Amino acid sequence: MTSSPHPLPAVGQAVLRGEMSSEQAVQTCLERIEQQDGPTWSFVSLRAEQALAESRERDAEPARGLLHGVPFAVKDIFDTADLPTDSKSPDYKGYQPVKDAAAVTLLRSSGAVLLGKVATVEFASVGAVSQIRNPFNTEFTPGGSSAGSGAAVGGGQVPLALATQTGGSTIRPASFCGAAAFKPTWGRVPVEGMKPFAPSLDTVGWVAEDCELLVRAARVSGIEEKDTAIEGRYLRIGFYETPYFSEAEEETNVALEETVRLLEKAGHHVENVSGPAGAECLNEWQDTLMHGEGRASYLAELAKDPAVLHPGVLGVVSKELGLTHDGMAAAYEQIAALRPRFDAAMEDYDAWLTPAVVGEPPKIEKGNSLATFNRLFTALGLPCVGLPGFTGPYGLPVGIQLLAPRFADVRLLQAAKIVESLIRLR
Amino acid sequence: MTSSPHPLPAVGQAVLRGEMSSEQAVQTCLERIEQQDGPTWSFVSLRAEQALAESRERDAEPARGLLHGVPFAVKDIFDTADLPTDSKSPDYKGYQPVKDAAAVTLLRSSGAVLLGKVATVEFASVGAVSQIRNPFNTEFTPGGSSAGSGAAVGGGQVPLALATQTGGSTIRPASFCGAAAFKPTWGRVPVEGMKPFAPSLDTVGWVAEDCELLVRAARVSGIEEKDTAIEGRYLRIGFYETPYFSEAEEETNVALEETVRLLEKAGHHVENVSGPAGAECLNEWQDTLMHGEGRASYLAELAKDPAVLHPGVLGVVSKELGLTHDGMAAAYEQIAALRPRFDAAMEDYDAWLTPAVVGEPPKIEKGNSLATFNRLFTALGLPCVGLPGFTGPYGLPVGIQLLAPRFADVRLLQAAKIVESLIRLR
Repeated sequence: MTSSPHPLPAVGQAVLRGEMSSEQAVQTCLERIEQQDGPTWSFVSLRAEQALAESRERDAEPARGLLHGVPFAVKDIFDTADLPTDSKSPDYKGYQPVKDAAAVTLLRSSGAVLLGKVATVEFASVGAVSQIRNPFNTEFTPGGSSAGSGAAVGGGQVPLALATQTGGSTIRPASFCGAAAFKPTWGRVPVEGMKPFAPSLDTVGWVAEDCELLVRAARVSGIEEKDTAIEGRYLRIGFYETPYFSEAEEETNVALEETVRLLEKAGHHVENVSGPAGAECLNEWQDTLMHGEGRASYLAELAKDPAVLHPGVLGVVSKELGLTHDGMAAAYEQIAALRPRFDAAMEDYDAWLTPAVVGEPPKIEKGNSLATFNRLFTALGLPCVGLPGFTGPYGLPVGIQLLAPRFADVRLLQAAKIVESLIRLR
Repeated sequence: MTSSPHPLPAVGQAVLRGEMSSEQAVQTCLERIEQQDGPTWSFVSLRAEQALAESRERDAEPARGLLHGVPFAVKDIFDTADLPTDSKSPDYKGYQPVKDAAAVTLLRSSGAVLLGKVATVEFASVGAVSQIRNPFNTEFTPGGSSAGSGAAVGGGQVPLALATQTGGSTIRPASFCGAAAFKPTWGRVPVEGMKPFAPSLDTVGWVAEDCELLVRAARVSGIEEKDTAIEGRYLRIGFYETPYFSEAEEETNVALEETVRLLEKAGHHVENVSGPAGAECLNEWQDTLMHGEGRASYLAELAKDPAVLHPGVLGVVSKELGLTHDGMAAAYEQIAALRPRFDAAMEDYDAWLTPAVVGEPPKIEKGNSLATFNRLFTALGLPCVGLPGFTGPYGLPVGIQLLAPRFADVRLLQAAKIVESLIRLR
C-alpha cells in the first residue's frame, strides 16, 4: 500500500513568520494526523483539545520564546505531565508521569505547543521491530527508534518532534522519512525524564521540517553561543567516506555526489578527508557500550517482571552477549582517545559531509535497517545534522549527514542551513 | 548541643539472621527517628504505617531476595511512587512521582522495606548548605549532599540508605556520620528516576551500617559476578596518599596509620604506591565537568522560574564560571586517559587505601566541607568503599577509603569486609 505524503508547506516557518496562527497550525496538523495516521501509526496519544486551547492562548499573547506557537510531538520515552508515557512497553501501560521531561519543558517554555506523543520501539532499545510505517510508502520502515518522530515530521503531521539517539535513532528515521534532524554534542541537552538506554551515548535530539526549527529547538534547549561568522563566505567542507563506505548503497553515493556538485557549483570548497586511524573499530566499540550499559538500564523492569520485556530487550540484559568488563573499559578508552583526534581533524572545516544511512528504507518486515553511519559519531559524541532531499530507486527518501567537532553545534547548524538551501533550490 | 547517638546494634544484620522480625526492625527505626530526628532533621517524609504493614507482609512470606525485610531510606532526589520527591527545591514542592526510580525498585524487589525519604541539599548540587545535623553532635555538619543518608544511617535510624555521588556525596557524609558506604563503578547501577547533576559523574551508591548490607544492595542492583577468591589468604593493599595528601588533617593520618597497623598485624601486606602521574589535576578536571554538565541539568528549572533556584544552583547554570568547551573537552580526554592507567596500577592489589575525607566534620555554619579525596575517584569512575571506625579531636567520626579498578566492585567489597572486621575487632 502506497500513501504518498503531501508535506505541509513549512507549518513551523509559517507560524514563526506570522503567516499562520498557532491555532491554524495545530488544526492543520490534527487534520493531517486524522487523514494519515491510520496508515503510519506515528501518534500513540494526542491532546487535540488542549493543544487547540493552548494555541489560542499563544495567539493572544506576546511571544514567549523562539518557538512560540509551533506545534511539536514527543518521542514516547520522555515523561509528559498530561499524556501517558508507555515507552512502548507493556510494563509501562498507562504510566502517567506528573512532570514533563526537561527537554519537553524547554520546548514548552519557548511557546511551543505539545500536540501528542509519537511511537518508538520498546524503550527505544534494540531488537523490537517498529510497527510504524514510512509515510512515503507504508510497506517500508520509517527507521527506528525515533520512528514516530521521523514518520510524523516526514509525513507533514507535525513540524517538530523530540527524539533521542543512542546508535542512529534520530538521524536514521529522519533520513528514511525525508526530514531534517539534529543530534547535538553529547551532554548539552538535559536527559532528565527520558528513559535511559546507555547513558554515555544517549543524546536528546530533534527531527524537524527544516534547519531553522532545529536551530531554534537547540537554542531554547541550551545550545546557544555567539554565532560564528559563517554566512557571506564560502564553506570549507570535508568529504568523509567513513571506514564503512563500502556498505553504502548506490543511492547514498548519488546523494553525496549531488551534494558535492551543488556545493562546488555555488563556489564552496569540498575536499576529501581520510579521518583518524582507528575509526574502523568505532561501531564495534559503540555496540559494546550500548549493550554493556544497556544491561543496567533494564534491570528494574527485569526485577519486577521479566515476562513483560520484549525478547530483544531481554537480550540486552542477558549476560550471554560475550561482553566483558575489560572489553567495556577498552571501548571507553579507545573512543575517548579518538574524540580529540576527530575534533582536531575537523577543526579547519565548517563541516564534514558523510552518509546519513546505508540507503533507502528497507521493507517493514526487514526491521529498522542499520545505523552504520551513525553509531561511530554517536560514540564520538559529536554533533550531527541530517538533511533530506534525495531519493532512491523506489522513490523513497535518502538523506545526507553533516558533522562538526564536539561543541561546534552552532557552526554546524549554520553550515547545514546553507547546504539545505542549495539542496532545496536545485 | 550534643546528642550522642546510640546506634542500633546492626538492625539490618539482625533481620537477615532472623534474630529480629522485619516489623520489629521497622518499629525500632521509627522509635529512633521519633527520638532523634528532631535534632538531626534527616527524614523529610516517612511512611510509617505502610512500612509497618509491608514489614508484616515480609515476615509472613518466603524471602523475596537478599534484603528481605530490611528497612531502608532514599535520598530525596530519587523518585518514589508513594512519597513526594521535592529534591529540596521549592520548584519541586509537593512533586509526587507515580513510579519508583530504578534503584528504588531494585531494593524493594529484593524485599527491602521503604521507610521514608532523607534530606539532601537542593538538587544534590553545590552551593546550598545542608540544614541537616550530624547525629554525633548537632553543631557539626553530616556532610553533603547525601546528608540525610549519612545522618540517618550513622544515627542508627535506618540500616541502609540510597545515596548518590557526583563529587563526594556518598563517601563524605558516611565518613562524617560513622557509617559504611559504597560508590560502585560508574554506569553499573541504573540512574533512571534520579535527578541528574553531571551525567558522566553521577553514580548511585549506598550508605549502610556495615559492608554486608552494601554487598547485598550492590548484588540486587546489578553488581553481581563470581566471587573472586579473596578470603582465606592475605590481602595485598596499596597505600595511596593521592596528590592532595598535604590537605589531610592529623585525624585522617592517624586513621590511615592505624588501619595499616591493623592490616600488617593480621599478616596482610601493605606497601606505598605512588599512582599515575597527572593525578594532581583530576580534582580540577572533575570540577570542570561537574559544572559544565551541571549547566544543562538545571536549564528546565531556569526556564520555568529562575527565582526558585538557590543561588548556588544558579551559579552552576550561569555562563560566568570561566568554563570553555575546549576546557571541557580537555577534561574529558585527560580523565579518560588516566582511567586505564589507574586500573593497571591497581591491578596487582586487592585494594588501595586512601583518605576518605580531609578530617572530622566541620561546624554546621562552615558548610559541607571539601570532597578533596573523593572527586578524583568519582572522575575516574572507579569503585570506592568508605569504612568508619575512627574519631578526631572532637570525638567525631573519621573514616577511611578503599579503592579498586573499574568493574572490580565485588573484589573491593570482599577486601573491605576483611578490613572492616579488623577495625571493628580492634
